[in-house]
Amino acid sequence: MMKVLFAAGEDRWPLWEAPLTKALAEAGVKAEILRKADPTEIEAMIYAPGGETPDDFTPFVNCRAVLSLWAGVEKIVTNRTLTQPLCRMVDPGLTQGMVEYVVGHTMRAHIGIDRVLATQDRWEVVLPPLASERPVAMLGLGALGAACAQALAGLGFPVLGWSRNPKEVAGIACHHGPEGLRTVLEQAQIVVLLLPLTAETRDTLIAERLSWLPDGAVIINPGRGPLIDDEALIEALDAGRVAQATLDVFRTEPLPSDHPFWAHPKVTVTPHIAAETRPATAARVIAENLRRLRDGEPLLHRVDREAGY
Amino acid sequence: MMKVLFAAGEDRWPLWEAPLTKALAEAGVKAEILRKADPTEIEAMIYAPGGETPDDFTPFVNCRAVLSLWAGVEKIVTNRTLTQPLCRMVDPGLTQGMVEYVVGHTMRAHIGIDRVLATQDRWEVVLPPLASERPVAMLGLGALGAACAQALAGLGFPVLGWSRNPKEVAGIACHHGPEGLRTVLEQAQIVVLLLPLTAETRDTLIAERLSWLPDGAVIINPGRGPLIDDEALIEALDAGRVAQATLDVFRTEPLPSDHPFWAHPKVTVTPHIAAETRPATAARVIAENLRRLRDGEPLLHRVDREAGY
Repeated sequence: MMKVLFAAGEDRWPLWEAPLTKALAEAGVKAEILRKADPTEIEAMIYAPGGETPDDFTPFVNCRAVLSLWAGVEKIVTNRTLTQPLCRMVDPGLTQGMVEYVVGHTMRAHIGIDRVLATQDRWEVVLPPLASERPVAMLGLGALGAACAQALAGLGFPVLGWSRNPKEVAGIACHHGPEGLRTVLEQAQIVVLLLPLTAETRDTLIAERLSWLPDGAVIINPGRGPLIDDEALIEALDAGRVAQATLDVFRTEPLPSDHPFWAHPKVTVTPHIAAETRPATAARVIAENLRRLRDGEPLLHRVDREAGY
Repeated sequence: MMKVLFAAGEDRWPLWEAPLTKALAEAGVKAEILRKADPTEIEAMIYAPGGETPDDFTPFVNCRAVLSLWAGVEKIVTNRTLTQPLCRMVDPGLTQGMVEYVVGHTMRAHIGIDRVLATQDRWEVVLPPLASERPVAMLGLGALGAACAQALAGLGFPVLGWSRNPKEVAGIACHHGPEGLRTVLEQAQIVVLLLPLTAETRDTLIAERLSWLPDGAVIINPGRGPLIDDEALIEALDAGRVAQATLDVFRTEPLPSDHPFWAHPKVTVTPHIAAETRPATAARVIAENLRRLRDGEPLLHRVDREAGY
């Protein structure tokens, strides 16, 4: 019986108890999920950062895996006490939810839903272009970026993919590096940010790079807040160069009530819902990694500490 | 040199001249497109109903094809002077535009964009279900309905297809007939209407059938206005049984300024833009039919007068 600590907050436990129990049974893994224990007894940890969860991993001397419930691990990867193998969550439900957020807000911008809702007093024919005439930049081509890029390509958008290092995604024109970023931004009418947050990706969209976008571009950020320079974005919106920004992530969350994004008419704030882990599907990933741990097989979605994701 | 009358309104000619010229050259069809002519000289007609266009086809004794620029032909199919073969427009650009309208408004309802836009004063986490938990009914499985059904299925929605007579669409659970309609409506959280308008489909959504929908269902009608009983819809919206309706088509168009749909908080009016023919792609369909006419081959998209479409 493997001893596993649920170190993801007491408030989350009711959401996870049933899905984890079911997934462990389906995977044939005998594990005891504890919410408090002697750290030396723990063999694996299900983890999400938060108030009560550990930030010193030193006492967990027998822990052989820290399994994050979140896709983004930047809050934990820099923790020097964390020497145990760390796995990100790559949840098919989370990926699907992200695809739906990105497709939904891309279509909203593309067919001009805000304009439709704001002109419910007159019969005014405005015909949007077809998706084939609306290039979309996808910054970040990991599991989430690739899935969103392919969903948008499937709807007819020309998708320009970009990542720091060369990547290949079936059906997507992939660019990389600093020159690739300029190529992609110069064509993009809609920009989606799904980069991991690292020292290199922080401030990807600064004033200079925002100025590369065609006038009237729309920005959708369900990635991480610090990928964008907030002040530069507001300047570009106020100058009319960027038409609209839909932001799900922020440098401080919840977004402080006095932040100018709240009242800005060209900014839509969503409360970090795009990349919500879905317990039913994510519990299966946790169970599979516990099975691999038991059987001595390589863990899924191991984090590369140097790269930071 | 085939003599073809452009009987689709002088105001449309500037949109069509270049695409038609290009498409005819590509198809190797030598045709003279006339905007006025002796009716007896005309061999084919490019047609859209409107102010100046003919409503008496009797003088066109040598006309062997009337090629509609519109997908819906109910305004012309009942014209008893029209004895010439009539073809509907099945334009790949129009189909794509319709898919984008339907996907856009389905995603808008699905991820709750209106609620997001109305709550830009607070951090309030509301997580929509995944598409896989949101059944969509597609009423009408012609070229447009089938394309929309497949696009929505591709995004993960369980799509329940319905048509009056049995049809098969790859990847879609297809139902038919009166019993099938009830089966489909009883499960649908989002209903899309893409039926042709015929005596049988008129008033498809009357009060009784609206009552079959689960509470909180959303209706999207880019098909034809008379498919829905307007008063029954308003009653269902006011009673809170139907949550929202997005309507692109109406019994009278433009929708009269005193119609209750305009001011209704749960109705979104769009000005008949979902099924707009796109000249670049539609001109190729016209050119191909003129080539078939010249070569004595069967015309594409011939209208069945009895069925009405």
